Amino acid sequence: DPSLKVFSLNSNPSLAQEIAENIGTELGKCSVTTFSDGEIQINIEESIRGCDVYVVQSTCAPVNQHIMELLIMIDALKRASARTINIVMPYYGYARQDRKARSREPITAKLVANLLQTAGATRVLMLDLHAPQIQGFFDVPIDHLVGVPLLSEYFEEKNFDDVVIVSPDHGGVTRARKMADILKAPIAIIDKRRPRPNVAEVMNIVGNIEGKTAILIDDIIDTAGTITLAANALKENGAKEVYACCTHPVLSGPAIERIENSQIKELVVTNTIPLGEDKKIDKVTELSIAPLISEAIIRVHEFKSISILFD
Amino acid sequence: DPSLKVFSLNSNPSLAQEIAENIGTELGKCSVTTFSDGEIQINIEESIRGCDVYVVQSTCAPVNQHIMELLIMIDALKRASARTINIVMPYYGYARQDRKARSREPITAKLVANLLQTAGATRVLMLDLHAPQIQGFFDVPIDHLVGVPLLSEYFEEKNFDDVVIVSPDHGGVTRARKMADILKAPIAIIDKRRPRPNVAEVMNIVGNIEGKTAILIDDIIDTAGTITLAANALKENGAKEVYACCTHPVLSGPAIERIENSQIKELVVTNTIPLGEDKKIDKVTELSIAPLISEAIIRVHEFKSISILFD
Ligand SMILES: Nc1ncnc2c1ncn2[C@@H]1O[C@H](COP(=O)(O)O)[C@@H](O)[C@H]1O
Ligand SMILES: Nc1ncnc2c1ncn2[C@@H]1O[C@H](COP(=O)(O)O)[C@@H](O)[C@H]1O
Repeated sequence: DPSLKVFSLNSNPSLAQEIAENIGTELGKCSVTTFSDGEIQINIEESIRGCDVYVVQSTCAPVNQHIMELLIMIDALKRASARTINIVMPYYGYARQDRKARSREPITAKLVANLLQTAGATRVLMLDLHAPQIQGFFDVPIDHLVGVPLLSEYFEEKNFDDVVIVSPDHGGVTRARKMADILKAPIAIIDKRRPRPNVAEVMNIVGNIEGKTAILIDDIIDTAGTITLAANALKENGAKEVYACCTHPVLSGPAIERIENSQIKELVVTNTIPLGEDKKIDKVTELSIAPLISEAIIRVHEFKSISILFD
Repeated sequence: DPSLKVFSLNSNPSLAQEIAENIGTELGKCSVTTFSDGEIQINIEESIRGCDVYVVQSTCAPVNQHIMELLIMIDALKRASARTINIVMPYYGYARQDRKARSREPITAKLVANLLQTAGATRVLMLDLHAPQIQGFFDVPIDHLVGVPLLSEYFEEKNFDDVVIVSPDHGGVTRARKMADILKAPIAIIDKRRPRPNVAEVMNIVGNIEGKTAILIDDIIDTAGTITLAANALKENGAKEVYACCTHPVLSGPAIERIENSQIKELVVTNTIPLGEDKKIDKVTELSIAPLISEAIIRVHEFKSISILFD
C-alpha cells in the first residue's frame, strides 16, 4: 500500500529497518542531521501528501535529543500534509515521572504526551508502559502492546522442569501473573521492606522458590539494582537457578557490571531500546519486538482490532 | 516584593544570578539534576503558590537539553500553582528555522513557541530575535528587547574619529541603521553575490569605508564565516580597522579560530549565551545584558511600559 510510509529517526534504526521489511516496504527517505551549533535539521526527501505515516522512535537516551528529534519530525510531517501521523514509540521516556511523588514535582510523562499532541501526532503505539494510566494522558488513540508473550515464548522453549515466576517488587505482580498464566507456573514476590529507618532493607520472599528455576520479570531494568539484589536473594534462599527478563533494557550506569557480578544466569530483553556495544555481553539475550510491532501497524492501517496480539 | 521569584536553570546561571542581584532578590531554590539514564529531574524547593515566577534560560547548546529542562520546569511551576510563568529567554534557539526554506522542512521556531505555551508559559521575554516575526508565533504576550543600545554605548566610549557601521548581509541593514543613528555615523553593506554558479562569491562593498573605523554588526555569530570574510574584505578595501559586534555569541565549530585569524581587531558580544572557557580569548569582549533584563523584569512586574528601554 503506497499510502503507508514508515520513517526512522535516530534512536533505533535497526528496529525500524526490520519493521519496514516485515511490512514489505522501504524506509521513507529523510535526512536528520545537526547544524554546527547542535540544532537538529530535518528534511523529508519524498512526498508524503495524503499518506499514513508511521515514525519509529524510542525516547531512550539521549532522551531529550530523541524527544526533540521526534517533535521536529512531526512538525515537518504535518506541514508536508501527511494524512495521519502515527508515532511508534517502543520505549516511552520519562514514563516513571508519571505522578507528583513529592510537592512541586513535574509530571513529565504527561508533559511529553501534551508535546506530542501539540506537535501533531494523531496516534501513538506504545509497548509496556511503566504505568498503563499514561494512556489516559493522551487525547488521541493509543495502541498499547505487551512484551510478556514474546518473553514467555522464549522461556517456554527452554522446557524447564519446575519454574516459578517472580516479581521483583509489589508493583510488578500483575505482569508476573500474566507470564505465569502463559507458562502455567506459580508466582512469588520479593517483599522488600525496611524494618526501621537507617536499617538495611530485608529481602523477604513471599512464595515457594526452593529448588525451582526462578524467572524474574520487570518492565524496565535501569541501573539493575533491584533485579540483581532480587536474584541474589532468590539464590541464597534456595532457588536452583535464576533467569531475568524485561521489555525495556535501559541498563544505565552500573547496570552491566551489576548483572555480570550477580546470580543472574541469563537476562532476556527486547530491542525496544538498542543495546550499545558495551551492553552486548554473553549473559544478555535480545529478542526482536519487530514482528509484533509490524503486525500491529498492518492491523491498525487496515482498521482491524489488535486485541488478538495480546495472547 | 515577595511575590516576584527568579529561578535559574542550567544554561546561564551567572546571568540569572546577576539579574536576581539587580532586582534585589535571591534566586529561587530548586534542584535540576539528571537521573542515571539521562532523564531530567526537577524539584522546586520553596513554595511559589500565587507568585509571579521568572525563569531565566537561554536555549543555547546543548539546545535540546535546555529546551526540555525549561519545559519540565514550566510544568512543575504550573502544577505548583504559580500565578504567572514568565520565561526570560535571552537567546532563542532554533530561531533560524523560522520558515519553510525548502519543501517538507519543519518550522521549528514555531514548534518551540507552541511547546512553551503548551507547557504553561504565560509570557516570554526575548532579546534580538533572528526574525521579529517569531513574536507572532506566540499567543501570549512577548517582550522583545534589543541589544543595539548596549553595544553602541560601548563603541561610543571609544570616541573613534571616523566611523562607519557595516551590515555583513542584506538581512541586517535595519540593525546597522539603528546603531548608525545612535553613533551618528554612516552605514555600508556587504553585498555578497555569486556571479555564476560554481564561481567564488564576490564581496562587493556598498558605501564608503576608505580610511574609516568599520564596525560590523550582526544578531548571531555562529561559525563566524560571514563576519570574518566581511572583516577581511573591509580591510582589503581600505578600512583603517575593523571591529565586530553581535548580541548572541553562538561561536560554534571553527568560530574562535576564524576570529583569531581574521582582520577583526575586537569582537564585542553580550552574555545572552555564556562564553565557554575556550571562547574567552583576548579579542572577545563580553558586555552584560543583565541590567537591561532586570530593568525590564521590574517594569513588567509593575505593569509599566518597557518601550523606554529601546533608546
Ligand atoms: N529516569 C528515572 N530514573 C530513576 N528514577 C526515576 C526516573 N524517573 C522517575 N523516577 C522516580 O521513580 C519513581 C517512580 O517509579 P515507580 O515507583 O517504580 O513507579 C518516582 O519516585 C520518580 O521520582
Ligand atoms: N542552527 C542553524 N545553523 C545554521 N543554519 C541554520 C540553523 N538553523 C537554520 N538554519 C538555516 O539558516 C537559514 C535561515 O537563516 P537566515 O536566512 O539568516 O534567516 C535557513 O535556510 C535554515 O535552514
